[in-house]
Amino acid sequence: MLNNLISIDKYRIKPGTDISLKDFDTEYKEDIINKEEGEKLLEESKRKLSEMQDKLYAHDQYSVLIIFQAMDAAGKDGAVKHIMSGINPSGVKVNSFKTPSSTELDHDYLWRHYIALPARGEIGIFNRSHYENVLVTRVHPEYILKENLPDINSVEDIKDEFWKKRFKQINRFEKNIYQNGTIVLKFFLHISKKEQKKRFIGRIDDPAKNWKFSPVDIAERKFWKDYQKAYEEAISNTSTEYAPWFIIPADNKWFTRLAITHIIYKQFESLNLEYPVVKPEISEELQKIKQQLISENGNGN
Amino acid sequence: MLNNLISIDKYRIKPGTDISLKDFDTEYKEDIINKEEGEKLLEESKRKLSEMQDKLYAHDQYSVLIIFQAMDAAGKDGAVKHIMSGINPSGVKVNSFKTPSSTELDHDYLWRHYIALPARGEIGIFNRSHYENVLVTRVHPEYILKENLPDINSVEDIKDEFWKKRFKQINRFEKNIYQNGTIVLKFFLHISKKEQKKRFIGRIDDPAKNWKFSPVDIAERKFWKDYQKAYEEAISNTSTEYAPWFIIPADNKWFTRLAITHIIYKQFESLNLEYPVVKPEISEELQKIKQQLISENGNGN
Repeated sequence: MLNNLISIDKYRIKPGTDISLKDFDTEYKEDIINKEEGEKLLEESKRKLSEMQDKLYAHDQYSVLIIFQAMDAAGKDGAVKHIMSGINPSGVKVNSFKTPSSTELDHDYLWRHYIALPARGEIGIFNRSHYENVLVTRVHPEYILKENLPDINSVEDIKDEFWKKRFKQINRFEKNIYQNGTIVLKFFLHISKKEQKKRFIGRIDDPAKNWKFSPVDIAERKFWKDYQKAYEEAISNTSTEYAPWFIIPADNKWFTRLAITHIIYKQFESLNLEYPVVKPEISEELQKIKQQLISENGNGN
Repeated sequence: MLNNLISIDKYRIKPGTDISLKDFDTEYKEDIINKEEGEKLLEESKRKLSEMQDKLYAHDQYSVLIIFQAMDAAGKDGAVKHIMSGINPSGVKVNSFKTPSSTELDHDYLWRHYIALPARGEIGIFNRSHYENVLVTRVHPEYILKENLPDINSVEDIKDEFWKKRFKQINRFEKNIYQNGTIVLKFFLHISKKEQKKRFIGRIDDPAKNWKFSPVDIAERKFWKDYQKAYEEAISNTSTEYAPWFIIPADNKWFTRLAITHIIYKQFESLNLEYPVVKPEISEELQKIKQQLISENGNGN
């Protein structure tokens, strides 16, 4: 039913498209669903998603990796909380990637993400991801120096070619995991600068939300244009058939969550997951075990 | 000096070469070095390797991954022991990969190897490696079914194309780590079927070596030709500029160890590693800290 209400193709970035973020809405402007309906539909979608996750777990062939990237206050944490709250936590692994540790910096930048990948049957959430390595480091290339890379001794060594290479590395990484059964879905929560300002003020005004606020966030806001440009290039170069990007309007939280849930659900649905059928020989074996249990000595206390 | 005695090019497989193992010696047939000289040279090479590893650790830009693959009793364990025994163990990580655990099978086949990769400044040894996934599984394709891969429901689904794809996946994996500073060296210890038989008998005859012997080893010996063929295809398809294969005669243990140590050492040497020079501003900073320490309050108890 939601199929007719939310067009996935509208948000999915076709491989090879050179995108410009200003061409994408930050607000949900259609009149098809209102907030109240949207929140109801979200509950329904979450329930269906939970059923799917149970099959994914039983089926044990695929894993699902969901990546959230966005400017601060765009709603990543909220999306994870509100979308995944209904799902069996034993099948979901959430990873929030902070500033890399020294152990992590002593490996290539994909390593800490690789080791955090979801196992078969699991959903893995990357709240921030390996994409920070072409985003925050693109805006602040001096961070790259901490990686101690061969041939990179100063910021001047980091040229356009460096980022092009990195996009290809990310594509290889994602192609490898895709070919081995990991479904990769990447969401950019597209918030407007105006809405971010509003939410920042909201966080400052609300003592309960102050913890979510750091002076660093404001500092990064100064680099808004640089970040938008970095996102445009990253998304343009890494939206592939096997690991697509979705640009989701993020000024209306209810819609952001609904759209993401719907897209994940549709992806699950396309896998045609069913509960595995036990093979006849295993059924026989189970019957034998049952007979053994029945004929066991003792009084079954 | 060893440069003139051991020709690396002789053992290194050029990318794109279709090799046949019968064209490669299993014995060291040259008359240039004898066993006694070889063992002396090995000690010297090990010492030089240890110095290099210390620089690698201090330099902290590269990591070195050394892969050993071979038929049983070809001397992998011995090579690790005898080559790496002189090196600071804090800079060396040895990983022996056994039958994958269920957690490991729940991930793509490269995952458990990826998480075991050496950190920058470290040497990582893979005693058996991700190549088992195109070797033991090639000879026993039924093992692939345990990976629960999408589209692979029976042995009949595993066609030539499957292995070609896997070789490419391995190349992608190795290219990614190479581009990020990991030096990858892959050694195939090439033993003759006759020498294996001799060593097996030796292990059975020697109670102290019985632990190294498992009836499974004999069972695999029946598949000798299949393994040789699997190795030929794997090596032909995955010896690259960035991650070369070396085929080392393995019938003479002393030569095997000497050749491997020499090749590793030469690779280190080509990196031109030097101990890092502390920058002037850091020197100044250290001087300030020193002054602060000297002028601290208290009696230093």
